[in-house]
Amino acid sequence: MDFDLTAGIAVLERTPHTLRAMLAGLPSVWTDATEGPETWSPYVIVGHLIHGERTDWIPRSQLILAQGAQCRFTPYDRFAQLRESQGKPLGDLLDEFARLRAENLATLAGWRLTDAELALEGEHPELGPVTLRQLLATWVAHDLGHVAQTARVMAKQYREAAGPWRAYLPILDR
Amino acid sequence: MDFDLTAGIAVLERTPHTLRAMLAGLPSVWTDATEGPETWSPYVIVGHLIHGERTDWIPRSQLILAQGAQCRFTPYDRFAQLRESQGKPLGDLLDEFARLRAENLATLAGWRLTDAELALEGEHPELGPVTLRQLLATWVAHDLGHVAQTARVMAKQYREAAGPWRAYLPILDR
Repeated sequence: MDFDLTAGIAVLERTPHTLRAMLAGLPSVWTDATEGPETWSPYVIVGHLIHGERTDWIPRSQLILAQGAQCRFTPYDRFAQLRESQGKPLGDLLDEFARLRAENLATLAGWRLTDAELALEGEHPELGPVTLRQLLATWVAHDLGHVAQTARVMAKQYREAAGPWRAYLPILDR
Repeated sequence: MDFDLTAGIAVLERTPHTLRAMLAGLPSVWTDATEGPETWSPYVIVGHLIHGERTDWIPRSQLILAQGAQCRFTPYDRFAQLRESQGKPLGDLLDEFARLRAENLATLAGWRLTDAELALEGEHPELGPVTLRQLLATWVAHDLGHVAQTARVMAKQYREAAGPWRAYLPILDR
């Protein structure tokens, strides 16, 4: 389906609540679990989403809207959260994500974007020209991808514990 | 990791809140979206989880704990929700799921299961002998699988809208 700003925001505003419902107060056997070496735990995923709020979605949107000489995005650091959130309690990270997301959605709403603005382009360092509309759709899909990843990482911890039911649960071997 | 009753319950009790955070009040373009013909929308997934609360996890646990002559589970109807929840508002389904889950977890807690009881077996109609421990671990993984599915179904609606970013979002082609 086409990107729709109202429908997209409806998802974006729910993600902090979703992750809080899934993770707040959960034992660390779940929140620090991974899918193996070099893969992310729910804790790391929340840190990654925080970094995106600070450096990706809104700053890149601003760059596109400014239509200045420099429309090229700064490459995104996919590992920044491993430094930035180190040692912070997960509850604090969930609060920080919710606060930043609310601020960013207020900024987005304040722009009252037109179709013409949504069609403006920026330059992705690897993907080339991308529109503001594509960036905002990606923000939504990126959220949902990490919600799915969070659930998958947790589910996999019971891959063996589920016994023969493993055959019925594709999530355990995805 | 091994199944742990306390850690497992911590996930089970969160699932209704997670789905409510994701779906309550969301436009139907998301909650009725699917991955194509014969696949499930978030609305159908919630109905499926309700049916599981009524007929699967606790009834099967009771059958195992009874250790009667009849330890064979009734086959699970994976399509019951297509009849049972038809026409009900999603908000009602989310409430119903939360209520049934809370009742079932109260039942489970009341059993104060021992390791010996968790090792008792039932007979799955297709998988053969399974333990109560495996059934409960499957309950947890099944929840998480459907949370991941819910997010994935929604994400895929923006497969084209994300433009070239599709290459960076594996969820869109899973």
